[in-house]
This record gives sequence, C-alpha cells and structure tokens, in this order.
Amino acid sequence: MATPHEPKQDRSRATRQRLLAATIDCLAETGWAAATVAVVAERAGVSRGAAQHHFPTREDLITAALEYMFDTRNDQAKHEAAALSGLVEGVARTEAVVAGLVESYTSVLFKAALQVWTHAAADPALRERIVPLEAKFGRASHRRAVEALGVDDRDPVAHHLVQATLDLARGLGLADVLTDDSTRRKQIVTQWSATLHTALHPD
Amino acid sequence: MATPHEPKQDRSRATRQRLLAATIDCLAETGWAAATVAVVAERAGVSRGAAQHHFPTREDLITAALEYMFDTRNDQAKHEAAALSGLVEGVARTEAVVAGLVESYTSVLFKAALQVWTHAAADPALRERIVPLEAKFGRASHRRAVEALGVDDRDPVAHHLVQATLDLARGLGLADVLTDDSTRRKQIVTQWSATLHTALHPD
Repeated sequence: MATPHEPKQDRSRATRQRLLAATIDCLAETGWAAATVAVVAERAGVSRGAAQHHFPTREDLITAALEYMFDTRNDQAKHEAAALSGLVEGVARTEAVVAGLVESYTSVLFKAALQVWTHAAADPALRERIVPLEAKFGRASHRRAVEALGVDDRDPVAHHLVQATLDLARGLGLADVLTDDSTRRKQIVTQWSATLHTALHPD
Repeated sequence: MATPHEPKQDRSRATRQRLLAATIDCLAETGWAAATVAVVAERAGVSRGAAQHHFPTREDLITAALEYMFDTRNDQAKHEAAALSGLVEGVARTEAVVAGLVESYTSVLFKAALQVWTHAAADPALRERIVPLEAKFGRASHRRAVEALGVDDRDPVAHHLVQATLDLARGLGLADVLTDDSTRRKQIVTQWSATLHTALHPD
C-alpha cells in the first residue's frame, strides 16, 4: 500500500501491480465477461480514472495481465528449481520436476490465462497481441524444464518428450477446470514420470 | 431439409439437429458471448419461436449442443476404429491410434466445447449440468482408446498411460487454439507413440 512518503513512481508501480493482480483474480473467479477495467479497478481499490490512466483500454489491461502472469510463473519456477537443486536424483527428481510443472497448470494463473486464450480464439485483434507473449513464455518454460530435468535438448527424443510433458501438463490443467481432478492427476504424474525417466535415460 | 411429406416428428428432429450444428459453429467461430438462441436460430434458418420451442433457455441449448458434440465424436471414433481394424500392427498401429485421438482434439467440436468449459468454470449452474456429461464422455473415450490400442485396462501401467495420452491430446488441442500448431504436434505424436508403445509392450 502507498504511503505519503513513497516516491510517486513507486506508488504508480504499486497501483499497476494491484490492478494486474485483481485482473487475474477476476478472470479466474468470474470469467472473461466480468473482467472489465471498471470491475477490476473497484476490486483493486483504485479509482476508475487511475485505472484508465494505466490501462486506457480493456485490451491493454488484459495483455499486461497476461504478461504479469507469465512473469509471476517464471519467478515461481526459478524458486522451485533452486529448491530442488541437488536434493533428489534419478526418477525421484524427474517426478518432482514433472509434479511441479503439472501443479503450475492448475493454479489461479492458469485458470485466468485460460479465460484469455479462449476469448482470443474468437477475437483476432486480441489473439494478435497475445501470440508473441505465448511464444516467449513457451520457450522459457521449455528451457526451464530441460534444465530441471538435466537433459540435452539437442537430442530429439529429449526435446520432444519435454515438449510432450508440457502439453500433458496443459491438458491436465484443463481437466481440473470443472472438477477437482487431483487424485487422478497424481497417479498420472507418477506413471508419466516413470515412463519419461526410462525414455530419457535408457540403460 | 424438411419436405411437406416428411412426418412431423422427423421435421422436428431435423430442426433440432440444425440448431445444434449451428450452435457448435457459432461457439467455435465467434465464441461464447455470441452463441445465443437468437443468433443460432438465425444461422440455422429456424424461426426464433421454433428455436425456443426446442430450447427454452440458452442453458438448454448449450447443454444439448455439448451432448451432440460428444455423440458426434463417439460416432467418428467408431468409424476410425473400424477403418484401422486389422490394417496395421505394432508401433504403426499405436501411432495411428494416438494420431487419430490427438487430431480429434483440434477439431471444431473441441474448439466449441472449450468455449463451454471455460465459461462453465465461472458459472456454477452450467458447470453442474455439464460435469455428468463430461464424466460419461471421458469414460467412453478411455474405453475406446483401450480397445483401439489393444491393451489390458486392468494393468495399472496401461490404464494410466492411456489416461495420460488423452490428457496429452487435450493439451495439444489447447495449444492449437491460437495458432496452427500442426507441425510441432506431428513430431510430438510420433515421439510419444514410440515411447508409449515401448512402455505398453515391454520385451
């Protein structure tokens, strides 16, 4: 929260971040239609004028929120990787990496992003704005998964199986949107990790 | 199209089917918000009164359309399975089954269903109506995949790897919503089919 002694640019940055966090919550909880600049501003406790100063259009707000989701997820992933580092090895490490990856696709961030993707499917102008962000995020996710699994991405088997693991995570995320799918998901993560580990590290 | 000599119940059934097919096209092309009873009726060339006779509320229309999507997909899958039967064996068969499965998640049916799922995520009343349909469809898809792959579903490895393949297909479907992902998808299908085949049929 801003204080009178806080420099103006810090207050401005804090306001921006509150608006973006509120956008994510609105999208995930109440869906695309309800996540307007006015509703988000009220939720964030920011005046409508201030919100419009930061984000003149809804598209500006949504695009910035998607970028904020990706940055937040990248930061989380870095912390997860650091926490894992050197602690476990072998198939246990593969399973820890896969489980962390998959859980990230069941978060509020994924549920908010799903609202944006699905709307963009029928909105060419929004799609054009978010496709480059998606591509950048996809490359960063892939690179992080390769590092965490400790494999050589130049090996086509490793490259495609890491990609498949990210696609599996996305599919499991979508399966969790309507019902709590955590019990089934856990079993699939265990089996996938074992099969992936064998394929990545043949004797 | 109805003719004057067609029995009344056949005309009624044909009208219903035209409305459901138009709903799917509307959802996939123009998204959730645009797929109202009035818009769908116009697209189907059906009077608004007749459309409302079949589907009193939008929820009725959407729920029936989802059921129609699942029935259509089930019929397609039966034809695919019959076409494959006895033609190829070994890893080529596994790849043909996986490829068919994955392609079904990039269809107009998937893109229409995605609009419904994503909206239902923030609409508890709609979610309650569609969760039982989803569960039934999920079980049918799993059973069909088990049969097509010719594996024993009582084996937990086979059971979970078939589930994972369906989740992977769903994730690849979602990846295809904003851009044409077919080149990357083809490589992933080839690699996963090889890995899956080895895991399902260890020497």
